[in-house]
Amino acid sequence: MSETPDTTNTAAAVHALDDALVLHANAAGDYTGTTSPAYWNMVGPFGGVTAATLMQAVLQHPQRLGDPVAFTINYASALAAGPYRVIATPVRTNRSTQHWTVSLTQNESGEPGGEAVVCTATALTAQRRSTWSTDDVAMPQVPPPGEVAPAERFKGVEWISRYELRAIAGAIPAVWDGSGTGSLTQMWVRDAPARPLDFASLTAMSDIFFPRVWLRRSVQVPVGTVSMTVYFHAGPAEFAATGSGYLLAQAQAQSFRNGFFDHSGQLWNEAGTLLVTTHQVVYFKE
Amino acid sequence: MSETPDTTNTAAAVHALDDALVLHANAAGDYTGTTSPAYWNMVGPFGGVTAATLMQAVLQHPQRLGDPVAFTINYASALAAGPYRVIATPVRTNRSTQHWTVSLTQNESGEPGGEAVVCTATALTAQRRSTWSTDDVAMPQVPPPGEVAPAERFKGVEWISRYELRAIAGAIPAVWDGSGTGSLTQMWVRDAPARPLDFASLTAMSDIFFPRVWLRRSVQVPVGTVSMTVYFHAGPAEFAATGSGYLLAQAQAQSFRNGFFDHSGQLWNEAGTLLVTTHQVVYFKE
Repeated sequence: MSETPDTTNTAAAVHALDDALVLHANAAGDYTGTTSPAYWNMVGPFGGVTAATLMQAVLQHPQRLGDPVAFTINYASALAAGPYRVIATPVRTNRSTQHWTVSLTQNESGEPGGEAVVCTATALTAQRRSTWSTDDVAMPQVPPPGEVAPAERFKGVEWISRYELRAIAGAIPAVWDGSGTGSLTQMWVRDAPARPLDFASLTAMSDIFFPRVWLRRSVQVPVGTVSMTVYFHAGPAEFAATGSGYLLAQAQAQSFRNGFFDHSGQLWNEAGTLLVTTHQVVYFKE
Repeated sequence: MSETPDTTNTAAAVHALDDALVLHANAAGDYTGTTSPAYWNMVGPFGGVTAATLMQAVLQHPQRLGDPVAFTINYASALAAGPYRVIATPVRTNRSTQHWTVSLTQNESGEPGGEAVVCTATALTAQRRSTWSTDDVAMPQVPPPGEVAPAERFKGVEWISRYELRAIAGAIPAVWDGSGTGSLTQMWVRDAPARPLDFASLTAMSDIFFPRVWLRRSVQVPVGTVSMTVYFHAGPAEFAATGSGYLLAQAQAQSFRNGFFDHSGQLWNEAGTLLVTTHQVVYFKE
């Protein structure tokens, strides 16, 4: 029997997000990971966590230069439960910027050579310097998180329970009766349990919005995000200032046309600093 | 002397844009092209034409399925005058959607093996079906093109002369005195000479906006677009309805922070149909 203290019970539990983002490096930029049941959506993982996974592959790369500025992910197919491979490649490194391509593949047939592309991504990282700065889109005037009721949870969609959501405007419709008139949502969001903000969690939260077509129509048609872009206006200073506080998440559709719609979104911290601007285009049926 | 009519003089001249977009296929998806002096900017070609070139590589691919829905281009380095290679690869083909990666390379050293990545891109094409459709961002009420004066040309920047620009709000500053207050531009634009709209020209025009930081500050700092995303809400029906008419181009910055700013933009046709939503992030110095 040892006299050394047992630290098992006092070690901090790993946050579900960090657990979901674990990547094992086979070589520089060549990783394997596994989907997380904690972030399961209807027919695959929450797309935000998949995006964060590809971002994580860049963040963990030993040759990374600087911090993320731009990130685009394309969802080419449904990600199946189980293992996947992520490859992040710095295709061009300049003096202060670096361009990346990233892919996520799965062996869909189970046979040798059965690897198929599930996601593609590109990213730009940069060593940022302090410059003249200003936000040209002010945070809307909204009640603080403590004055907004937590949103009701979607039954049967596991990932929603990994976030604390407090809808101010444009909550998910209570009835699917075709009565929708607008596509603007404003809500407070943070990880549940709370977790200090970083590039990975900010990437995931950029996909926090339920489909705009459900809100606009109050009709729950089949949907799937096919491409998302995130521009990062935040870095270590903004993360420190934000801590594990709430973010104000806002999104509004621009056009619904022949099976696809897009939205434009913003995430601010409680102090009103714009952290991320994000856009996506989503397939919808009917 | 031949009795057959000489058609040399009556054949339509090739439009400068079509000339700039000529790609010679070495194999399926493997092309060579050359930069066009007609679209020259300050230290390289107009980024919109470079984007249209990578889009063209997808459009010309013999295995293409459907029409462009989403397109992201990353400008990794300056494109030098001269030849380049474009490779477009369909990395995933589904029943009605197809995902692409595209790269543009140049031999920068002039030595064998000196190929370097200048641009990366991803694209989604899809066979679109008629669905419930609506625009959630209305075209702003502006005077028609005929009532707006053509913009003064930028001296010494060749590509500007390939477009007819009529600024309604947020024209390029007349003086660089630090007096700027906003970043919103609204202008009518079309190819000069006029040319029927298609995916390539719409891609190019998605980059028509001069840098928002110049407008916001009335200071002409060094800039360069590093990533642009275009979502297409238009297809053959909208192209036919638009013809070679003017588009209303609108863009506004969201955040300027530590060397990078982003903008969000829209292009409508004269009838008020939203054709494209587009976003970009731009490096700026100081």
